[in-house]
Amino acid sequence: MAQQSLPGGPLHVIGKRGPNIDAVERVTGRAKYTGDIELPNMLVARVLRSPHAHARIVKIDSSRAEAMPGVRAVITYKDSPKVMIWGHRQYALNEHVRFSGEAVAAVAAVDDETADKALTRIDVQYEPLSFVLDPEEALKPGAPQLFSDGNLEGQPRILTRGNIEQGFAECDKVIERVYRCPTMWSGSMEPRACIAQWEGDKLTVWASTQSPFRVHGSLAAQFNLPDGNVRIIASYVGGGFGTKSAPHTDEILASLLARKARLPVKLQYTREEEILDSNTRFETKMYVKVGAKRDGTLHALHVKAYINQGAYHTRLGGLGNQATHVYRTPHVRTEQYRVHTNIPNTGPTRGVGDPQETFGIESAMDELAHELGMDPMEFRLQNVKRSGDPIARGGSGTEDGRVMSQVLDKCLEEGARRIGWNRRNPVPGDGQSGPLARGIGVACTERGGGGGIGGATVKVNLDGSAHVYYSSTDIGTGSRTTLAMIASEVLGIPLSTFRTTAGDTEVAPYDGGSQGNRTLQGTGRAVEAAARDALQQILASASPMLNNAPPADLEIRDSVVRVKADPSRNVKLAEVMQRRGRSVVGDGQTTQPQVGMDVERTTGAHFVEVEVDRETGKFRILKYIAAHDLGRPINVTVVENQIEGGTIQGLALTQAEELRFDPRTGGCLTASFIDLKPPTALDFDPRVVEPVIIPNEGILGPYGAKGLGENPCHPGMAAVANAIYNAIGVRLREVPFTRARILHALGEQRPAASRTA
Amino acid sequence: MAQQSLPGGPLHVIGKRGPNIDAVERVTGRAKYTGDIELPNMLVARVLRSPHAHARIVKIDSSRAEAMPGVRAVITYKDSPKVMIWGHRQYALNEHVRFSGEAVAAVAAVDDETADKALTRIDVQYEPLSFVLDPEEALKPGAPQLFSDGNLEGQPRILTRGNIEQGFAECDKVIERVYRCPTMWSGSMEPRACIAQWEGDKLTVWASTQSPFRVHGSLAAQFNLPDGNVRIIASYVGGGFGTKSAPHTDEILASLLARKARLPVKLQYTREEEILDSNTRFETKMYVKVGAKRDGTLHALHVKAYINQGAYHTRLGGLGNQATHVYRTPHVRTEQYRVHTNIPNTGPTRGVGDPQETFGIESAMDELAHELGMDPMEFRLQNVKRSGDPIARGGSGTEDGRVMSQVLDKCLEEGARRIGWNRRNPVPGDGQSGPLARGIGVACTERGGGGGIGGATVKVNLDGSAHVYYSSTDIGTGSRTTLAMIASEVLGIPLSTFRTTAGDTEVAPYDGGSQGNRTLQGTGRAVEAAARDALQQILASASPMLNNAPPADLEIRDSVVRVKADPSRNVKLAEVMQRRGRSVVGDGQTTQPQVGMDVERTTGAHFVEVEVDRETGKFRILKYIAAHDLGRPINVTVVENQIEGGTIQGLALTQAEELRFDPRTGGCLTASFIDLKPPTALDFDPRVVEPVIIPNEGILGPYGAKGLGENPCHPGMAAVANAIYNAIGVRLREVPFTRARILHALGEQRPAASRTA
Repeated sequence: MAQQSLPGGPLHVIGKRGPNIDAVERVTGRAKYTGDIELPNMLVARVLRSPHAHARIVKIDSSRAEAMPGVRAVITYKDSPKVMIWGHRQYALNEHVRFSGEAVAAVAAVDDETADKALTRIDVQYEPLSFVLDPEEALKPGAPQLFSDGNLEGQPRILTRGNIEQGFAECDKVIERVYRCPTMWSGSMEPRACIAQWEGDKLTVWASTQSPFRVHGSLAAQFNLPDGNVRIIASYVGGGFGTKSAPHTDEILASLLARKARLPVKLQYTREEEILDSNTRFETKMYVKVGAKRDGTLHALHVKAYINQGAYHTRLGGLGNQATHVYRTPHVRTEQYRVHTNIPNTGPTRGVGDPQETFGIESAMDELAHELGMDPMEFRLQNVKRSGDPIARGGSGTEDGRVMSQVLDKCLEEGARRIGWNRRNPVPGDGQSGPLARGIGVACTERGGGGGIGGATVKVNLDGSAHVYYSSTDIGTGSRTTLAMIASEVLGIPLSTFRTTAGDTEVAPYDGGSQGNRTLQGTGRAVEAAARDALQQILASASPMLNNAPPADLEIRDSVVRVKADPSRNVKLAEVMQRRGRSVVGDGQTTQPQVGMDVERTTGAHFVEVEVDRETGKFRILKYIAAHDLGRPINVTVVENQIEGGTIQGLALTQAEELRFDPRTGGCLTASFIDLKPPTALDFDPRVVEPVIIPNEGILGPYGAKGLGENPCHPGMAAVANAIYNAIGVRLREVPFTRARILHALGEQRPAASRTA
Repeated sequence: MAQQSLPGGPLHVIGKRGPNIDAVERVTGRAKYTGDIELPNMLVARVLRSPHAHARIVKIDSSRAEAMPGVRAVITYKDSPKVMIWGHRQYALNEHVRFSGEAVAAVAAVDDETADKALTRIDVQYEPLSFVLDPEEALKPGAPQLFSDGNLEGQPRILTRGNIEQGFAECDKVIERVYRCPTMWSGSMEPRACIAQWEGDKLTVWASTQSPFRVHGSLAAQFNLPDGNVRIIASYVGGGFGTKSAPHTDEILASLLARKARLPVKLQYTREEEILDSNTRFETKMYVKVGAKRDGTLHALHVKAYINQGAYHTRLGGLGNQATHVYRTPHVRTEQYRVHTNIPNTGPTRGVGDPQETFGIESAMDELAHELGMDPMEFRLQNVKRSGDPIARGGSGTEDGRVMSQVLDKCLEEGARRIGWNRRNPVPGDGQSGPLARGIGVACTERGGGGGIGGATVKVNLDGSAHVYYSSTDIGTGSRTTLAMIASEVLGIPLSTFRTTAGDTEVAPYDGGSQGNRTLQGTGRAVEAAARDALQQILASASPMLNNAPPADLEIRDSVVRVKADPSRNVKLAEVMQRRGRSVVGDGQTTQPQVGMDVERTTGAHFVEVEVDRETGKFRILKYIAAHDLGRPINVTVVENQIEGGTIQGLALTQAEELRFDPRTGGCLTASFIDLKPPTALDFDPRVVEPVIIPNEGILGPYGAKGLGENPCHPGMAAVANAIYNAIGVRLREVPFTRARILHALGEQRPAASRTA
């Protein structure tokens, strides 16, 4: 990639390729994840879970467990603070349990065996209640009620633009379809783990979290502690994908047990617990009605979605309405019904509701184009928003007149060129003989890269080496690397001399956390500010060593402070720092530059070529182009990794990872890898994914970067459905696209042909 | 104490009484000292020490030890980096050993028993060399040589003022005396302890140190690591008194063992090791010649001192020449010969050389006053420096014309009033019959309160609670409390909401450390600056919530931000922080305001009444007034504790704590509490010490405070010697004042009288 430059001059660090700076630590096992941490005299905790999907605890007796040698503490709902968990309608432990797998008691003991055995000696008498698993059923009169005010969570979320009735009346073509995504697994390689330790009234929790300060807030509220009495540490996190973005039960249980036992307690979920009691991707049933003018101009869009929230989770769920913002559409109405049912908690998972929503919208756009007799690419190019169009939440730029750049059209054009769009079947399902049929499909994505409140500290040591401190975490996205690169670029200090401290609420200032495309844009902006603060201090210290050249005339390059106009006048940074004798501490605290406007749009278009076996119903991916507009890439390798990883995560949903529940008991039937069947490297060769970076520059993020983490996960389901349609002429409106579903759809489509054969 | 005020308004926190904020943690055992820290798989280290005072290692074979089950690493001089320890003429392990007790090898093993046993299986063959223990002997031709360039450390330190020959020629009365202090114990309740842990090329050391950044520098140099790869943590330190102010062998040995064993290693000294291999108070032999005019005007002073540095230590030793600065003396010459001998390392100990020097100077002043026929108090008042007199290193004030305030004269006057100076024997040794004789003595102290480079961070959390971070340590001086009080005063946030992090080089910026009267003045200045930085940020955030009142018109009181002129216009700090949504991080990095002028003088005068038993030679202290000028007290309780503790530490030296060495072997004869006999509460009732704070205000420290830690330890020996002289008419010129010495002196003084009796 050519060296990038900014008005201030060429860039030296940003825009290059390079491995993550913590790669060696991670792959050698040196990086200490929460589960690796051992404290002296630490107890292990285990959790007793409800076998009922809906029940009331009539009696719970833990005395036999408590009497066991080696058991140090047992807690039940009686010990739980009567404070709702952040973003949930539940206490840490509840008398009224609402899903099969819900925690009802927890034990801390000297070892796993003792703790496991103690669970069997907690006597619980339940009164089972009738339960409901389907969100539409849950809204019907007479349905089992999870909460006294009904199963609907809050008010329906309604978004309107224009006049939807008038819009449809003015359309020449209108289609109505229903698209379904089931509850889907979203866990990480590292199951939840936490360690709680009390020192007097100070609580320290090592947690596997994306948002240390959210957990901090949760525990401060649960235990009514001042901010300074809670410290959350999450140095390394083994994947998060949204499921670790919200505070959870486990940190509270461990803290309660540790307080009762007066010893540190580690609570580490098993894989089964991780699947059952995490925030999985929520089930969505979308009723989509969309209409256009005869010339292909998109005119009206109505989405009605039922979202299965699960038992308790309330915040951070729902569709983001991102997909509805991809196109210029004068008349829009979206309605979301977020419904509580007796399945485990759901919540944000990479893209939150965007992959589900994108599946519906981008499938419907394909169907509408087909009905209009148009090429789906041309239809999209005709309707997609361009720079200067109003963005989702309001205007099209900042107060000072800068326009938010959107190059989704260029993503479409470049993606089409690379996939060879002209190779697709002009008539879906036609032109290929034999059992194997090929087809090509496309889908778009668009999402805000949340900035919000950022905080970071950049320290320069007396030998000129540097350190970045931030409380967000690197959940595998490479943020340690990209954030250090930003500081390195600003300061002119080589990246190799940087160290980083991530995920510590006591050491770093408040920061919004690592979710929602925000770390790079939000925390990154704070790192840039902190580094600029540090730079000013260094240049001021260097000035007297360079004949009092004004600091504004100085720069640092490769750890040498020099006069910009005459680089031969210079002094080593290490000498400046030695002479200065004091560390440099740069403070970066940033907020959104303008309400509603900090969210810059990250876009992309995915193109996929599939091969479908008409006889077995199996499909495979032959080629995949993931073209994205992410502003300026900070590290090209990191960006490509993010695109590949997100794309494969999105594609996994086309095949497997459905969480299924037993309609007779409400119990989860797929609480293991054997049953969930997450794809492995044998199922998807990552090399088929070709990440493409469409050149662009944002206006709000550090050095023009935008957040990217979520988007690559969005378009996969729709792009594959569209490609399958192009290959075999059948439309799949429910994921995953199992062999049975494909064969069934083929059977329905051509019953006559089958019979003549 | 009346509420204090500054031009800016009354003070709300500073100047009050109150317990240390970490008192409960410390007394309940919750505070984790280095020895309390356990890491998983941590090994224990033990050190093999030389039985010879001076020898060369001919052969060292550790193979038998290495072969033992449970032994994980053994190191000898062959493993030692060939880098001198900071401030020493030694490597961590040396082929040429120079004192009895010097480390020659170290072992890391799974438990103490194994490590101890392994030490017996290291085979060392020594070539014993002749040794020397006395510094004057060591300078004679033919003396055993510790180093190839001789036993004298560097050049003699010479300080001159005026013309010493001319000065003595102009005097009417000149006396010459010799005063001796032996090598004296200076250890802490907590023996040295450290834990070293490597993660790749990053070294973390938990150390019992006063100066984390000095240890940081030492280890970075030993292992050739960039600053960012070394982290020193010293959260709690169980006393330091200077012995833990310099980097030491133990941290290097633990780090070497941990690197070799690839596991964390804890090295904890036994009491014996702590006595043998710490920096003890150095032996001093002072030749004092002092002369005055007939009217009592002090005119010339010549001091020649031989200092027994011990084997290796080079920096931070020697007399500070502080005592020579107490008086206006036109002609001064001091010569210091710092000599290496084959006793263990000596080094700074509370006051460094000042207690020894004060013993000589303040005894000599008493003797000269007696020779002149003057009251020693009047003689002192006539000659003592006053505000406006030039201070030690240069001028008498700052560049902007502020005069450094010295109220030593007031300390003398107030102390004399409280002790009842007029009750003293007009003729020394006279006027009392029977075996018990009472007498009253006085001695002065004067010392710089070093400021130097300070660094601190003050964070305000989103709920308005606050946190002070600094890398210096609280070695029992109450600095956690006083530093938090300074931030509390600046910010108007109650002290109870503050938390502190001390002694962590990775979390806090560079700071000079906790020694030499500097923490309060140096680090305190940085804390004040950091808090003011935080305050400005908060007021700027609050302004829009108070009708855009200019930040300069706002103040915070009890966590409420209000308009100074109209306090009814206010908003809670917690609301400001919530609205702001970002932490406030205040940065404080301070340097000395003016070279040579940052050192403000802390002074004091101690008065003691003793009772001497002429028959047994035993003396006891009846009353003790310790009057000090320390600028403005931040916390009166903390100040009084410091005065009491320092005074008793100084008085202990009059009775015991002498380190004695066997002239035949060079081995230490007093390497245990049984032999050192440090006084207990039964020996000195702390209630006899009456601390007196003489009102004053400094011009350089935070809120006018000056450093105090060292001074109270200085005058005890001289004051007691002067009181004994006043009681029984005999002059003691060598400490400790044992019964034998007192009886011997009484016998020499009055042989005729004894015979007539």
